[in-house]
Amino acid sequence: MTDPTLAAGAPTNVPAYSLPKDNMRVVLERRPVGIPQAGDFALDRAPAPEPGMGEILVRNIYLSVDPAQRGWASSEANYSAPIPLGGTMRALAVGVVAKSRNPDFAEGEFLYGWFDWQDYAVVDASKVVMRARLPLPLEAFAGLLGINGLTAYLGLIEFGRPVAGDTLLVSTAAGAVGSLVGQIGKLLGCTTIGLTGDDGKAALCRSRFHYDHAFNYKTRDVGDAVAGAAPGGVNVFFDNTGGAILDAGLRRMAVGGRVVQCGTASIASWATPPTGLRNEREVMTRRLVWNGFVIFDHRAKFEAAAAQLAQWRAEGKLVSDSDISVGIENAPGAIAALYAGENKGKKLILLQ
Amino acid sequence: MTDPTLAAGAPTNVPAYSLPKDNMRVVLERRPVGIPQAGDFALDRAPAPEPGMGEILVRNIYLSVDPAQRGWASSEANYSAPIPLGGTMRALAVGVVAKSRNPDFAEGEFLYGWFDWQDYAVVDASKVVMRARLPLPLEAFAGLLGINGLTAYLGLIEFGRPVAGDTLLVSTAAGAVGSLVGQIGKLLGCTTIGLTGDDGKAALCRSRFHYDHAFNYKTRDVGDAVAGAAPGGVNVFFDNTGGAILDAGLRRMAVGGRVVQCGTASIASWATPPTGLRNEREVMTRRLVWNGFVIFDHRAKFEAAAAQLAQWRAEGKLVSDSDISVGIENAPGAIAALYAGENKGKKLILLQ
Repeated sequence: MTDPTLAAGAPTNVPAYSLPKDNMRVVLERRPVGIPQAGDFALDRAPAPEPGMGEILVRNIYLSVDPAQRGWASSEANYSAPIPLGGTMRALAVGVVAKSRNPDFAEGEFLYGWFDWQDYAVVDASKVVMRARLPLPLEAFAGLLGINGLTAYLGLIEFGRPVAGDTLLVSTAAGAVGSLVGQIGKLLGCTTIGLTGDDGKAALCRSRFHYDHAFNYKTRDVGDAVAGAAPGGVNVFFDNTGGAILDAGLRRMAVGGRVVQCGTASIASWATPPTGLRNEREVMTRRLVWNGFVIFDHRAKFEAAAAQLAQWRAEGKLVSDSDISVGIENAPGAIAALYAGENKGKKLILLQ
Repeated sequence: MTDPTLAAGAPTNVPAYSLPKDNMRVVLERRPVGIPQAGDFALDRAPAPEPGMGEILVRNIYLSVDPAQRGWASSEANYSAPIPLGGTMRALAVGVVAKSRNPDFAEGEFLYGWFDWQDYAVVDASKVVMRARLPLPLEAFAGLLGINGLTAYLGLIEFGRPVAGDTLLVSTAAGAVGSLVGQIGKLLGCTTIGLTGDDGKAALCRSRFHYDHAFNYKTRDVGDAVAGAAPGGVNVFFDNTGGAILDAGLRRMAVGGRVVQCGTASIASWATPPTGLRNEREVMTRRLVWNGFVIFDHRAKFEAAAAQLAQWRAEGKLVSDSDISVGIENAPGAIAALYAGENKGKKLILLQ
C-alpha cells in the first residue's frame, strides 16, 4: 500500500434534492421480534425542525440500510442503547447542510453521520461521522467510504491481519461489506473464498469481486467446499453470518487463524437462545484468535481508512454497487429485505 | 515485576531413586473413548535401553499427569500426532541423566522433558524442555516451573493481558494450572474469581490461593455468582473447562474482554460433537478476543517465565501443591482421576 494521494474535492453525481416544509420520519412503533419488519415502523409527518445554537439542519439525501439496525431496534442487551418506541429509527445517512448555526459547518456542505431515517436532522457535531469531500459519487460516502467500507477495511486489517499468501474466507461474500472484504483481501495478496446464498451472487463474486472461489452455501456443503478451495486451511475468516456457516468455517481454519466476528445474519432471533455445535475445542486446538468487531470502536481510524478506500476506488481497483430505492416509504421494509438477501449491493433510500 | 534475581543452584528435596535393570513402561493398549481410563493402558517390562551417540539415558523420578494427555491419546485431529497403539504413553517427567553420550548433558544432571511414562527414556536434546538448576524442590520442576506454571503464566500474560484493576475469572480454579493463574493474577493486581466443583476446594481457593471470590459451580448458578462478584464484568477469563461454565462466563464478560481457552475439561467426549449455546453474538457485541492457547507454541519464552515463577516462589509469593502417588502402577488410572477432580494439587507419580 502507498499513502493515498487523492486530492480533496466536491463529491460528484449529487442527485437533485428538494427542501420540503415538512419532516417525514420513520418511527419505531413496535419492538421487533428478531428481524425488524415493515409493520414494526410507522411514518410520521411534522414541520421541519429548526437548529439551535451550535447545531445544524441536515437535509438527508441517502438513507443507509444496514444489518446492524436490527440490533439498534432490539431491546436485547447490545453494544448500543435501544431506540425508544415512538422514536425515529436510528440510521446513518448522507445529507447536505441546509441551515447552519455552527461555524464549523457551511451550508451546502455534504456530510455522513447519524441523521436517522427522516428528511431532516437537527444535530450537533458529535453526530457527524465524516465530511464528504473527495471527488467520488455522493452515494459512495454512504457505502464504500461509510460504515460498509470502513467495516470491511478496518475489520480485515485490524483483526484479520492478512498477509500476502493467506487464504481469506468471507461469508455474505457478495454483500455491501463482504464484497469489499474480498476485494481488499485480493489487493493484499490473499487467496479469497466467498460464501453466498445464491448461484447468481456466487458468479458475481467471481466475475466482479475477484474472488478466487465462490460457493452457494444452500447447494454446497460449506465444509467440503472450503476444504477443497483451501487445502492448507483458512488463515482469516471474516464472518457476517454466524450459525452453521461459522461452525463449518471454524473447522477449516489453519493453526493460528484469525476469525473476525462482524455479524450474525443467519440467526433469525436471539430471543430464544439458539444452540449449535460447541466450538471451544476448535478455538483451542487450532489456536484461533476470534475477535468481536464493532466498527464504531474504531472511529479514530475512519479518516485514514476512507482515504485508502477512496484511493483504490479512484484507481479503479475497487468496485462497490448500490441498490437504490426512491422514497422514504421504502425504508421500513428494507431491513427485512436485506436479511432476505434481496438487495444487489449497498441498500440506500434516496430522498428527492 | 522486577527482573528475577534467584541464583542458579542444585534442586533440593531430591528423593532417593534406584537404577533398576529393567524398564517398566505404560503402553497404550486401546484407543480411549473420551477420557482415558486405567483399562486403556497396560504395563510392559523390557531391559533398560542404551543411549546411542548424541543421546542420553534419563532415569525418570517424577512422571507428570496432565489433562492434555487425553488429547495425545486420542485419535481425533488435535495439535499433536496421536500415540500409536502399543506405544509408550506420552508424558512429561523430571528425571536424572543416568548415562550420557551427549557432551551437553552431564550424568547426574536433573532435566524436565518428554520422557514419557516409563522408568528410563533414551532421548536426544530435542526432548529436553528445561534443565532443573534452581534451588527449589525437585518436584517444582514438574509443576510450578513445568507445564502447569508455564501454562498459567504465559497463557495469562500473553493472551489474558491483565492490567491492575482487572477482574480475572478462572475455571478449575484449585487445579494445578488454575491455582497458579489465580495467584499470578492477584500478584498483578487483579480481582480474582475462582470456579471449582467442590466446597472444600472453593475454601482452599480463598484461603490458600488468595482468590477474592470462589464458587462451587455444582451448587451455585455460575452466571449469578460471577455477576455478583464482578459487577463491572469480567476482563480476563482463563477457561480450562469449556461447556456450560464457559457459556456462563462469556455472558459476564466486560466489553473488550479476553478469553484464554486453555482446556475443555468439562466435555466428556468430542466423538459425538457436543452442542450448546451459540456464542458468536457474545463475541461480537462484547468485542471479545477469544484465544486458543497451547503452551508448546511458546517454548522460546519458557526460560524467562520459569525464572519469574521461581523468583516468586523463592520470595514466598506463590504456593503450589503436589499430589504424589508412588509407583508406576498408579499412572494408568491417574488421568481419569484428574478429570474426576480427585487430586489435591499437581498430580505426580514418584518412581523409586
